[in-house]
Amino acid sequence: MSNKIFFTPGPTQLFYTYQDHFREAIKQDVGSISHRSKEFMRLFQETRENLHQLLELTDDHRIYFTGSANEIWERMVQNLVINRSHHFLNGDFAKKFYDFALQYQKSPSKTESPFGQAYESMDIPEDAELCGITLNETSNGFMFPAEDIYQIKNENPDCLMAIDGVSALPAIPIDFNYIDTAYFSVQKCFGMPAGLGVWIANKRCIEKAKQMETDGMVTGSYHSLTSFEKYGQKNQTPETPNALSIFILGKIAEDMLRRGVSHVRNETVYKSTILYQTAESVSILDPFIKEKKYRSKTVAVCNVQNGSDTVIEVCKKKGWVLGPGYSDQKQNQVRIANFPMHSKEQVEQLCDFLIREFK
Amino acid sequence: MSNKIFFTPGPTQLFYTYQDHFREAIKQDVGSISHRSKEFMRLFQETRENLHQLLELTDDHRIYFTGSANEIWERMVQNLVINRSHHFLNGDFAKKFYDFALQYQKSPSKTESPFGQAYESMDIPEDAELCGITLNETSNGFMFPAEDIYQIKNENPDCLMAIDGVSALPAIPIDFNYIDTAYFSVQKCFGMPAGLGVWIANKRCIEKAKQMETDGMVTGSYHSLTSFEKYGQKNQTPETPNALSIFILGKIAEDMLRRGVSHVRNETVYKSTILYQTAESVSILDPFIKEKKYRSKTVAVCNVQNGSDTVIEVCKKKGWVLGPGYSDQKQNQVRIANFPMHSKEQVEQLCDFLIREFK
Repeated sequence: MSNKIFFTPGPTQLFYTYQDHFREAIKQDVGSISHRSKEFMRLFQETRENLHQLLELTDDHRIYFTGSANEIWERMVQNLVINRSHHFLNGDFAKKFYDFALQYQKSPSKTESPFGQAYESMDIPEDAELCGITLNETSNGFMFPAEDIYQIKNENPDCLMAIDGVSALPAIPIDFNYIDTAYFSVQKCFGMPAGLGVWIANKRCIEKAKQMETDGMVTGSYHSLTSFEKYGQKNQTPETPNALSIFILGKIAEDMLRRGVSHVRNETVYKSTILYQTAESVSILDPFIKEKKYRSKTVAVCNVQNGSDTVIEVCKKKGWVLGPGYSDQKQNQVRIANFPMHSKEQVEQLCDFLIREFK
Repeated sequence: MSNKIFFTPGPTQLFYTYQDHFREAIKQDVGSISHRSKEFMRLFQETRENLHQLLELTDDHRIYFTGSANEIWERMVQNLVINRSHHFLNGDFAKKFYDFALQYQKSPSKTESPFGQAYESMDIPEDAELCGITLNETSNGFMFPAEDIYQIKNENPDCLMAIDGVSALPAIPIDFNYIDTAYFSVQKCFGMPAGLGVWIANKRCIEKAKQMETDGMVTGSYHSLTSFEKYGQKNQTPETPNALSIFILGKIAEDMLRRGVSHVRNETVYKSTILYQTAESVSILDPFIKEKKYRSKTVAVCNVQNGSDTVIEVCKKKGWVLGPGYSDQKQNQVRIANFPMHSKEQVEQLCDFLIREFK
């Protein structure tokens, strides 16, 4: 590995144990064993169990693996929405999920707010079958408060609550009693190379997909929810899976369990606090999200006076890679990731440097 | 890595340079860099160029990356078939592709033959938009002769020829002038851990997908062929990709180019010849495919007298992992992979041992 530290919001810095787990995987022939073998089923089960415990899922939740979080947007539209999904949309990633529903010719509705701004209402249409909420909008650093999610679920118990946990889970706590389905990718909080999505779905989701199939609807093929569940019951996958990444994900989940998930989350809060304090005290930086309750704890997004190039370049010389703003904000903003593998010391050093350099 | 040698038909023995390329990828931060960065675009382009050269594609062919070959079956049904695909079907994997078309409520037709047996006719229906042919049926070791593929294309120039190259490419030569689309996964001839599919499609395929979209059909979302092409033109992918595997795939393709693709193919023929000679001379083994012209050069499938357990166990003690038969043939057959990373010496040793042990 180079001497750089990636504070980019994903792909990002590799988890500090990633290479050790890779070596262990090679030693155990994880890249060569059959995905129908007992060895595979054992590692698959272990990863699922570790994630289950780490995310504090209910007995009702199941875990499946896809190629990306993008794929999960698509699979949810195919498997959980007959006519209408509803989307809370104040950022690029929430918009993508909404666009996927449009591309599949559903009739999605949306509660829209200017990018990065809070929503005026938590009401959703009565006929919404699924409600898509982005817990942490990686593109602009807006955090959807958990309490608002619980309120929406309480007011709409029949609507499937679908949480985009990309760049949030497991660092941001969420009570899965209120969540029917959620998903994330491993190149954020788990510090792994990209190429694996994790889909969590409860029995209500599986029942819905089954019903849609009974009613003659197309829910996909090998990665339909019922196909996932059929193979998942045997601790297998429909296709030859990315066993190596599934193995390593389980091991990193175990590392986090060993540290304690509350410890991981407390550190996230601490590091996020000093990041925003720094942004507020440094003349050229200004947190994009104004109200503290909506500020992402894992991706701090800041407007940068006179453009993002200077601060990115100066940090690069120190070996610290910051993320530019997303899409059309590339030149105006920086995004600084604060994931579980970014240590307190690393974040403190970065903050000290920014204060010295730009005070 | 353990001391085992995996002769399983995929996942299989890792390519001998796999770990070196992994280390180089880590050194270059491939797991951390942005998939919108110049570094990524450069490696993406390099992998595409190496594969293009290795597979001797035409200027008309483009390369895209998916999560698996299963995904490509699905994407082809979504993007290239309005009503009817035709499938040559004498094995489990060809059947899966056919089943995917059924699941998407197309009206696929098929030329069926008992599993592992040759087809009586090369005729296909006039209204078939796409013809699915499995070059190497990994489940039973049937090889579809290239000349028959060229004949079908000559007789049906308007039909898109779709070649399942899983466990065949690049070890089995095929003239891409006759092929519109083809696909494979990396855990076979490239000796990589699973989790990456490679989709080759020419301009006619892209035009067809575009037309289907213009006509209001659903072709998927982020992984529709037009989305792949839109990002592909920039040497990017629609979603955050498995950059690590794309990098390593390109390096292994380069290794094969350095050895020379004709050398790789000649060795494949030599090793395959001694494998079948061994099977024919050993009392308990009997090649499943009787006619030599239909015998797979990369996956030798043999019936085993009194069940496959004994030969698998005896070889296991030597550190050689053979594949059992596929699905309901598990107990009756062995499958021995002969991929580019299986060296002449390894195959010769295995054959010598089988002859000594079971003559």
